[in-house]
Amino acid sequence: MSIENAPQPCDLLIEAGWVVPVVPHGVVLEQHAVAISDGAIVAVLPIREARERFAAAQVVSRPQSALIPGLVNAHTHNPMTLLRGVADDLPLMEWLQGHIWPVEGAVIGPEFVADGIELAIAEMLRGGTTCANENYFFPDVQAAVYKREGFRARVGLPVIDFPTAWAKTDDEYFDRAIEVHDQWRDDPFIATSFVPHAPYTVSDASFERIRMLSDQLDMPVHLHTHETAQEIDESRQKHGQRPLARLDRLGLVSDRLVAVHMTQLTDAEIAMCAERGVCVVHCPESNLKLASGFCPIGRLEKAGVTIAIGTDGCASNNDLDMFGETRTAALLAKAVADDAAAFDAASALRAATLGGARAVGFEDLIGSIEPGKQADLACVDLARIETQPLHHVISQLVYAAGRHQVSDVWIAGHAKLRDGVLVDMDADALIARAREWRKRIAAIRIS
Amino acid sequence: MSIENAPQPCDLLIEAGWVVPVVPHGVVLEQHAVAISDGAIVAVLPIREARERFAAAQVVSRPQSALIPGLVNAHTHNPMTLLRGVADDLPLMEWLQGHIWPVEGAVIGPEFVADGIELAIAEMLRGGTTCANENYFFPDVQAAVYKREGFRARVGLPVIDFPTAWAKTDDEYFDRAIEVHDQWRDDPFIATSFVPHAPYTVSDASFERIRMLSDQLDMPVHLHTHETAQEIDESRQKHGQRPLARLDRLGLVSDRLVAVHMTQLTDAEIAMCAERGVCVVHCPESNLKLASGFCPIGRLEKAGVTIAIGTDGCASNNDLDMFGETRTAALLAKAVADDAAAFDAASALRAATLGGARAVGFEDLIGSIEPGKQADLACVDLARIETQPLHHVISQLVYAAGRHQVSDVWIAGHAKLRDGVLVDMDADALIARAREWRKRIAAIRIS
Repeated sequence: MSIENAPQPCDLLIEAGWVVPVVPHGVVLEQHAVAISDGAIVAVLPIREARERFAAAQVVSRPQSALIPGLVNAHTHNPMTLLRGVADDLPLMEWLQGHIWPVEGAVIGPEFVADGIELAIAEMLRGGTTCANENYFFPDVQAAVYKREGFRARVGLPVIDFPTAWAKTDDEYFDRAIEVHDQWRDDPFIATSFVPHAPYTVSDASFERIRMLSDQLDMPVHLHTHETAQEIDESRQKHGQRPLARLDRLGLVSDRLVAVHMTQLTDAEIAMCAERGVCVVHCPESNLKLASGFCPIGRLEKAGVTIAIGTDGCASNNDLDMFGETRTAALLAKAVADDAAAFDAASALRAATLGGARAVGFEDLIGSIEPGKQADLACVDLARIETQPLHHVISQLVYAAGRHQVSDVWIAGHAKLRDGVLVDMDADALIARAREWRKRIAAIRIS
Repeated sequence: MSIENAPQPCDLLIEAGWVVPVVPHGVVLEQHAVAISDGAIVAVLPIREARERFAAAQVVSRPQSALIPGLVNAHTHNPMTLLRGVADDLPLMEWLQGHIWPVEGAVIGPEFVADGIELAIAEMLRGGTTCANENYFFPDVQAAVYKREGFRARVGLPVIDFPTAWAKTDDEYFDRAIEVHDQWRDDPFIATSFVPHAPYTVSDASFERIRMLSDQLDMPVHLHTHETAQEIDESRQKHGQRPLARLDRLGLVSDRLVAVHMTQLTDAEIAMCAERGVCVVHCPESNLKLASGFCPIGRLEKAGVTIAIGTDGCASNNDLDMFGETRTAALLAKAVADDAAAFDAASALRAATLGGARAVGFEDLIGSIEPGKQADLACVDLARIETQPLHHVISQLVYAAGRHQVSDVWIAGHAKLRDGVLVDMDADALIARAREWRKRIAAIRIS
């Protein structure tokens, strides 16, 4: 063998029955392999060629599985995982004011945030999710936990018009935001965004400050908006404008805007989102459960708006299951569009991966299986009764597979889940800790 | 110990962290046991008392699990499991005429029906489902397979206005129906119903014959109706009446009617369903995926109509996951009713169990954990990261648990799933057989 033909060393070669790269759209590569070095994808090629071309330090063979990009949860409040199911089936205001806020007020702090995120990371990894767009208080604690666990995240720097455990005044919110941003600005795994809570809880002055800083520091603005008809009505009454029009007046409707929920949209608003490059994060299960409304995914898709998918927090969903959420998104879009061909399986999978990568501002790093991107990957075992017979791989992934079929997960080439078992995390210890929180929260609720 | 206090023998004692009996509604019994003899439930009582009162031949202890009634899939076409994902994301008529019907026409027959049902039973058992309301051709074959596998089912006797592989003329449909009915009339596991396909494919004359026979033989009439707006329009054009009004004229709107889909309903129709004791089977995921419309569960619930849940067939869903379907039903009902308190978790669980039992006509046999009922039960492991912390058992079962958390299933006290493994079925053989069908179906589609 000549030197030219000597196999090239690589760290890891993953061989799969099917590779679904997401780019190109809708493609399934049979019997393909992904070669990985230094955390990045080096090549995507037929298994036979891969074995000749690469001398891998490690080979993982999954002949019955589909290898997909790690899923991106584009909107979540992961510390609230500790409040999973604490109050359900209640009208929105009774739920918030009578249950979620009082409990949250009593427990919020660094310990709650850290433990909630640990539990959430374990749940996300077990379900093939490798990146989260986080939106909660104590982003300093969030960032530290995500970093420690080697999980990719953009943490949100909250801004809200009233005092919380995180900050008391407008200035304190911004000071703390800049401090966290500065600390993490060059990290390869962790980045920051502004997360003004919602148009009805943030003043014009704060939005203006956010616009200026987000431009200066090149940061996304991740915002709940157009969630309910009530929000639209109140904005009209208070500001004489619908929330998007007001955000536009404040200079915020741009390709930095990551707009979450968006159940109330006119055609003109959809056109504006498309033209400005706004990314819409769809949280179908939260919208259904809280009776918020129906995001018009079919119309957004036709207009060319980037769509991402998020689970929202566990207090309103009640899980971090991106397989379930993507399936619900694909099903619901059809009924809402009155078109069984709307938001097909490949489009739904793209939203859960590349769309999410765009929402998190990591589109150059993750979201597809392409050379040069980070090796954030999930392996889904399709040789289960639940996904047989296997007529179409992408249909099966979106409409039939469950998150429990995820066998292996890698982030930047590091194994985080192997044969369904968490590599770096102690599941029993996490469950024991969750049980302690259940007791603490039950005690609050009784008192 | 006196003779009066001697422990009473029983076949099986299942001890669970929580028993959710469904009757009484919304109740969770902590640290309870279910005693079983001769396939029936003898007692539901605290574990401590159970150990004193019963001398069980076998004790199964599941301290981290919830024991629930086996789920009832109240509308399914299980042979179509072999067509899972064969064609998706297409407009309804293109889907049916261009894909499902041609493929079905080429494969339908006893072998397809038997193999499809075998695969479906395995999937249902793994997901905690213990009874199916079957709606397909070759009910003779269906009944034989369900019986062989010890799975509880009501098989449908099809009636449709055109010739199929099952029967060529109206008389042949009825002759074969009566023959199958007679064969199974006294079976403890298998019963029959009439399954006229839909109002738009069955004549007045056939409906009248069905009404007469169903009264005579005490059989339910299990029928797709009010599935789409188009069906309503066509009925008005052809018959001058909406389908329910036509069925009422033909004497079929009674407590024998099991009406599936029902996405188009006026208040008067809902009131009629409540008054006559019609059972509505909700198939939310099929309705969403085919863009059929939204069944008004909140309004039906308020009117007191019995609601059951079905997955529909795998060609349109694409699974037999009653956990997923129940969750979708609970979420969707809230958005459709514009009320976050509609169809709460306990009501959704009741629909998936007792409501289903009523739809299948087995309400005296199954659907709740009560002495005298059959021991059709499922154990759900809640000590997983995905269902922690455990603030509310029923919320967790409906909104967070996945079917993969089902560890054990019994039908009439016989173990069918043990620690997640099928007791009487060979999963590898089923998968191998499904793969053969994939090849056969692919060959048809290419030719």
